[in-house]
Amino acid sequence: MEKLQLTFFFLFLLIFPQIVFAQKQTVDLIVQNGTVVTMDGQRRVFENGSIAVSKGEIVGVGTFAEINRRYAAKQLINARGKAVIPGLVNTHTHIPMTLFRGIADDLDLQEWLTKYIFPAEAKNVDEAFVRAGTRLGLAELIKGGTTTYCDMYYFEDAIADETAKAGVRGVLGETIIDFPAPDNKTHEQALAYTERFVNKWKNHALIVPAYAPHAPYTVSQQHLGNIKSSADKLNAPVVIHVAETETEVNDIIKQKGARPIEYLDKIGFLSDRTIAAHVVFADENEIGILKKRGVGVAHNPQSNMKLASGVAPIPQMLAGNVSVGLGTDGAASNNDLNLWEEMDTAAKLHKLFSKDPKVVTAEQAFMMATIGGARALKLEKIIGSIETGKRADIAIVDLDGLHQTPTYNIYSHLVYATKASDVRHVVINGKIVMRDRVLLTLNENAIKKDANLYRERIIKSLSTN
Amino acid sequence: MEKLQLTFFFLFLLIFPQIVFAQKQTVDLIVQNGTVVTMDGQRRVFENGSIAVSKGEIVGVGTFAEINRRYAAKQLINARGKAVIPGLVNTHTHIPMTLFRGIADDLDLQEWLTKYIFPAEAKNVDEAFVRAGTRLGLAELIKGGTTTYCDMYYFEDAIADETAKAGVRGVLGETIIDFPAPDNKTHEQALAYTERFVNKWKNHALIVPAYAPHAPYTVSQQHLGNIKSSADKLNAPVVIHVAETETEVNDIIKQKGARPIEYLDKIGFLSDRTIAAHVVFADENEIGILKKRGVGVAHNPQSNMKLASGVAPIPQMLAGNVSVGLGTDGAASNNDLNLWEEMDTAAKLHKLFSKDPKVVTAEQAFMMATIGGARALKLEKIIGSIETGKRADIAIVDLDGLHQTPTYNIYSHLVYATKASDVRHVVINGKIVMRDRVLLTLNENAIKKDANLYRERIIKSLSTN
Repeated sequence: MEKLQLTFFFLFLLIFPQIVFAQKQTVDLIVQNGTVVTMDGQRRVFENGSIAVSKGEIVGVGTFAEINRRYAAKQLINARGKAVIPGLVNTHTHIPMTLFRGIADDLDLQEWLTKYIFPAEAKNVDEAFVRAGTRLGLAELIKGGTTTYCDMYYFEDAIADETAKAGVRGVLGETIIDFPAPDNKTHEQALAYTERFVNKWKNHALIVPAYAPHAPYTVSQQHLGNIKSSADKLNAPVVIHVAETETEVNDIIKQKGARPIEYLDKIGFLSDRTIAAHVVFADENEIGILKKRGVGVAHNPQSNMKLASGVAPIPQMLAGNVSVGLGTDGAASNNDLNLWEEMDTAAKLHKLFSKDPKVVTAEQAFMMATIGGARALKLEKIIGSIETGKRADIAIVDLDGLHQTPTYNIYSHLVYATKASDVRHVVINGKIVMRDRVLLTLNENAIKKDANLYRERIIKSLSTN
Repeated sequence: MEKLQLTFFFLFLLIFPQIVFAQKQTVDLIVQNGTVVTMDGQRRVFENGSIAVSKGEIVGVGTFAEINRRYAAKQLINARGKAVIPGLVNTHTHIPMTLFRGIADDLDLQEWLTKYIFPAEAKNVDEAFVRAGTRLGLAELIKGGTTTYCDMYYFEDAIADETAKAGVRGVLGETIIDFPAPDNKTHEQALAYTERFVNKWKNHALIVPAYAPHAPYTVSQQHLGNIKSSADKLNAPVVIHVAETETEVNDIIKQKGARPIEYLDKIGFLSDRTIAAHVVFADENEIGILKKRGVGVAHNPQSNMKLASGVAPIPQMLAGNVSVGLGTDGAASNNDLNLWEEMDTAAKLHKLFSKDPKVVTAEQAFMMATIGGARALKLEKIIGSIETGKRADIAIVDLDGLHQTPTYNIYSHLVYATKASDVRHVVINGKIVMRDRVLLTLNENAIKKDANLYRERIIKSLSTN
């Protein structure tokens, strides 16, 4: 009897060796059978593709059959008929300003700032406000398939805390500005706060703490120098507004004898850890500087339009191999955190402005919202594309809405027809944070309730001067 | 006993006369307790407003309490916490081109037309195609709260038939062009078709049949004259593309010695039944002509951007009291029929292009998408605002999405934060055509299935030359 069993075993082994030797590896999550838009170097798209995720990392990308043969999963996301894309990267926000969404529009920048935004901030912004606004913004980001954002605001330590709790990835910059801010009253206080903040968060899985000097016209040369030294010491990114308006350019030329980017380069401020927001005004020489120094650029087309700032030379930057990502800017000047609309607008705006409908293709716009944004934030080694070894930041997006029917080209459909509301599931660092449009790490109703309480307070604060 | 009862009755009558004499009028539909954005002459907004609808007509607009006191309803729509707005008006489409959505993008206009659109049309467009594409487009329009659209395509009689069946309002123009079209091969055939078409539909409750000469550069002066005479005779609107590109302007100047609008005026073509699409290029004199002749303008900001056509002088037209509406153009050059994005883009684009963030306010953008569009289509007496005596074309829109939270100003929120996916219920001519995002007059699944079959056919037709 025993002999017979042994014979059968060897016979079985001979016929089905893979079952005996090559057991499937069990992973935490498989995203299964979607149109996987990898955004890898070869821009591979798997029509019936799957992704295997283990310990937050992408361990396998391939056809449905291939992944199915190699892996078994504890958790499955069925992506049939859907696009599976790298989570979107929003390279410029002021996230708590969601609470000021639509508080004042259609105004001159100066009137908008001095009559509404600055007073509203002075009267309302404290740590609790920042936490409530951050949660509102995080919820909106996740709902739209954004998995990483780059922020600049006050009480950034509280923002980091809320972001980590929600399971969202962030490059989070504490604002340093040469006037008393809601959190820190002097440059020295702000710098000390930021150093503590960076040291506290620098080894976190999701949070990259950063310095955020507001702009070259609101932070003195000496203070910019202090910030640069401190950031170098801690090897942290530096987020800064640069060349957003013509007024800024003219003022810096007058004061410093150079255009904003030239000036920042001249004082040794720029490095491959600099993330420059807006850069609406950059000439050929300055684009060369951005490339040479490895500066990342956050392009905010809708905000630049709404505030009538101008059109950034994005086609020239892309041609010059500058790392460009897309951003929404704060909700007070947009008025949402919707990267899908930024992609669509970027592709259309640069066609118009270049008088060339071939400029900024759908694929380029999608690149800026994914791997381009990751490069701008210096995170391209861990996110921005669906590749083995990267962190699993993934959005699964419906492709069968009426407004998306029929589909001919995946990039065109993602950029020109797909909306934030088409995002169905979101995975960040291997963890599902939205399933079937239900947020799993945030309480949507509580967030709305808090936001509406702040609304009352903000309105009251502006009516009593 | 009887005496006592009678005494009580008279006593009751004395105290509550309105209950005995003023019985509530029963109406077909009440839209109840929303933020009613009327877009009437005084731009009234009722915070807790209701609308009473009888026989497809708005018979009462007012506060919840007021309408409740005067009317009882057979059918109710609860609009609590939602905006109740005039149904949106899309002033320029080629509706069956939804089937070509994303077929070719990021190309020069000539390459796009000659390599993709014209061959795809020549090989695929027949009456069945037009019906399938129209149903797809109508479904997308309703889902986004658009209740009226102005079209220009072939087999427009079939489009009218599908539109009427879906219960959507349309100004539908049969294309007349100086080369053989999918339906009519000669000018004479096209003119005869259009006359039959106009006579057939001219008394329909929802359909306004129209003539649609393609453009001044594709229809000869003599043929434009024939069309004008015929349209005058039948008192029908005339829809035409005008001054869309710089090339067109230069060609017309070369051929006719005048700019496009000047030329059309010189030959007596323009009237207060003309609806001009695009008008990207119009100088001060031409804006004066548009006003003097009562021409309506369909502004298509996203299409003009995507095809790199230019920026229409909309602030100047608004200042000159020209009737301007918003349009999406066909889905092949947009790539959707989403008026919410056109509003947002219009407001932002003109700020940028005028270098003035006060230009085209949210309220003006919303005006163009509602009463402005109605004026451009010469339908302002029956639609475009929520007023007693107008037809009940109404959209009920969620206001509590995360991306809309909090709300400060209703116009800002509708234009800068609200999306097509926030539209919840749609009423056209008093009839509910979408309830809780479910289409009631169209079969969404059948529409998608048809569209995907056409997709296969179209791809095959383009690969076999």
